[in-house]
Amino acid sequence: MLHIVDRLAPWLGPGQPPFAVATVVAASGSVPRPVGTAMAVRADGAVLGSLSGGCVEGAVHAAALDAIASGTSHRETFGYSDDDAFAVGLSCGGTLDVHVQPVLPDDDATRALHALAARAEPAPPVALVRRIDGGARTAVVVDDPGATDEAAVARALRGLVGPDSLTAAAAQVVAVLRAGGTATVHAAHGGPGASPSAGRAAAPAPAGGAAGDACDAAEPVTLLVETRLPAPRFLVCGANDFAGALVRHVRLLGYRVTLVDAREVFADPRRFPEAEVVVEWPDRYLAGEAAAGRLDARTAVAVLTHDAKFDVPLLRLALDLPLAYVGAMGSRRSHAQRVAALRAEGVGEAALARLRSPIGLDLGAVTPEEVAVSITAELVAARHGRSAVVPLSSSSGPLHAEPAARPDGAPTHRPHPEEAP
Amino acid sequence: MLHIVDRLAPWLGPGQPPFAVATVVAASGSVPRPVGTAMAVRADGAVLGSLSGGCVEGAVHAAALDAIASGTSHRETFGYSDDDAFAVGLSCGGTLDVHVQPVLPDDDATRALHALAARAEPAPPVALVRRIDGGARTAVVVDDPGATDEAAVARALRGLVGPDSLTAAAAQVVAVLRAGGTATVHAAHGGPGASPSAGRAAAPAPAGGAAGDACDAAEPVTLLVETRLPAPRFLVCGANDFAGALVRHVRLLGYRVTLVDAREVFADPRRFPEAEVVVEWPDRYLAGEAAAGRLDARTAVAVLTHDAKFDVPLLRLALDLPLAYVGAMGSRRSHAQRVAALRAEGVGEAALARLRSPIGLDLGAVTPEEVAVSITAELVAARHGRSAVVPLSSSSGPLHAEPAARPDGAPTHRPHPEEAP
Repeated sequence: MLHIVDRLAPWLGPGQPPFAVATVVAASGSVPRPVGTAMAVRADGAVLGSLSGGCVEGAVHAAALDAIASGTSHRETFGYSDDDAFAVGLSCGGTLDVHVQPVLPDDDATRALHALAARAEPAPPVALVRRIDGGARTAVVVDDPGATDEAAVARALRGLVGPDSLTAAAAQVVAVLRAGGTATVHAAHGGPGASPSAGRAAAPAPAGGAAGDACDAAEPVTLLVETRLPAPRFLVCGANDFAGALVRHVRLLGYRVTLVDAREVFADPRRFPEAEVVVEWPDRYLAGEAAAGRLDARTAVAVLTHDAKFDVPLLRLALDLPLAYVGAMGSRRSHAQRVAALRAEGVGEAALARLRSPIGLDLGAVTPEEVAVSITAELVAARHGRSAVVPLSSSSGPLHAEPAARPDGAPTHRPHPEEAP
Repeated sequence: MLHIVDRLAPWLGPGQPPFAVATVVAASGSVPRPVGTAMAVRADGAVLGSLSGGCVEGAVHAAALDAIASGTSHRETFGYSDDDAFAVGLSCGGTLDVHVQPVLPDDDATRALHALAARAEPAPPVALVRRIDGGARTAVVVDDPGATDEAAVARALRGLVGPDSLTAAAAQVVAVLRAGGTATVHAAHGGPGASPSAGRAAAPAPAGGAAGDACDAAEPVTLLVETRLPAPRFLVCGANDFAGALVRHVRLLGYRVTLVDAREVFADPRRFPEAEVVVEWPDRYLAGEAAAGRLDARTAVAVLTHDAKFDVPLLRLALDLPLAYVGAMGSRRSHAQRVAALRAEGVGEAALARLRSPIGLDLGAVTPEEVAVSITAELVAARHGRSAVVPLSSSSGPLHAEPAARPDGAPTHRPHPEEAP
């Protein structure tokens, strides 16, 4: 539910009706939404977010209103039924486990949501942990989750988990937090285990038993851990209409966008209201940001300057950094000249192979908005390791990318940028 | 310049500095911007729009300031120079002809821009005609260009063209207007000819000679005709987070978006502020719009209901209409069931082949925003007749789609949606 926290803020004001949050806690098959996806339903029927693309939402809506009335959290499983494909069932053939939690004025969850909504922009990393077995209404905020330790997490979890399972639960939760992931975690005295978002399905959760009440030695505990990383960065170099369109499109994907151009008259902030605008030679700016540690493996760079005197020094540096995506605009002729110039500057073949030039997918794009779509689509494909791209209607593989397995066995789901603020 | 008229409105107020408009009137090679693309430069140096992705804009900026100072329109040609690739030249290897026109307070162009900026939304079809040979500062607005006739156009052009060339010019201009196109038109007594935007290059234009002054029998006339069609429509069926993301993305492409869902509680206009929201069964809505003549060959439909009881009747109808794009979301299993149901309802194989299902390009998209990118990219590819899509960096054809040739020889450039309001 972290991805809807910002939109929930207006529902938290004094005198607002209570609401319930329905969160995906396990999914299997071709269900398009990862663990942590949430929909909120207010007592007056208003809806925020969605779970599944529509097919189970009527039933979840009713379950949420029931939960508000009863004051008790519960878990619902939706699965495909051949007999009932036109009713609630998921015709996609998957199953979806949904935790439905009422959020009432005096709840920890209300306090946690208030605290999260008050965070300054750019929002720092944060995590939310809830107990999702039993009927309790819980929520704990963990600040700076990547840097936390087991002792601090164990203290934070004391209100959610009894003493016998606390150590095992904290160890599980810390692993998810450090990976920046979102996952359902199972912990019991002597029997821990984590279900990453898109990995194996969660084990069946026991019904009943409010958090902290069931403290016998074999207490099974199921926690939902959600981590929110800061928005990833997208650097657009070159202030023109292609840049304006690209800024608008990648903003929708949740990137924090910086537009860099050395020409002050073109780099007018009024032309790029959704971006931070920097008037500087792009290669100098990139070098400064890299030295300051403000770039990471999620950072993307699009070079739209279309001008060798800006492009070549900038790309030489960008291809030397461990970035997610480096692309450059230009005709096939410009591209050939640019590659020759980069080679002459000593850029190696492995680095050149990472350069996406001419930038974008081959959509036949003409206008700046179309070119922005072609670049954004290439960026999404790159995030999921797709190289050749075909319409889904003429391919046959799974529709949604699976997170890659990590050799250390830690949960691998990292929030996508638009789940960040 | 029609595509920047809305953004120019603040520059037209009383006491604002004068400005000049630089417009692409001919292009060859891999120049990414079509005829009609414009950049405005104000006397204080402020810029609006862009021409080329950056490489000639410094020179155009200077030419625009010169034109404001001189009060005279002129034409500049930018071409590639091997000796000078780091200076003004187009390293992409193309050439670009740019008409630079000062817009001063008492000009016809100022009056035309005021008239255009005052149009109500949704903006009706309109055209702008300017004379681009010689130094004059002209502009004529033509209302409802698709329905106009040669006599009306000849009357409108009387201020731009001398009597000997008027008939030939009007015939040329009417052809562009009726096609909804944007093109440079050449007309002389006995020697007419039109250069469509992305077709053959414009013939060299004579310098000097203000409009209406050079009235000898062989008067050569060059006119730039720009037509603006109403925004094309995008119908999104199914009110969920995928729809919310898709609405935001296709709005950026200039579509007028309608969201349709029969479930009132989900089809809340506050969730979809960029769309017109209609609470109705989508198939009934589509039938009504088709009967009322409010759909056309540019209309796109995305079915995100994910629910056979909505999908099947809606798709049966949509596939029977001459629309630009019909796609439906769903897993491969849902897709197979849907196709079987449509076949059972009598939908033929040719119609089924037009259905894009599962909707979108295979980008590995997971989140609603990523799925929206995959759909938007498929839409752009469809507009340009691309089926298999690869990164530009691993293909070898031209970067930009050429307009298809029309058998009747009429100009074929139709404005892309984002050039409409």
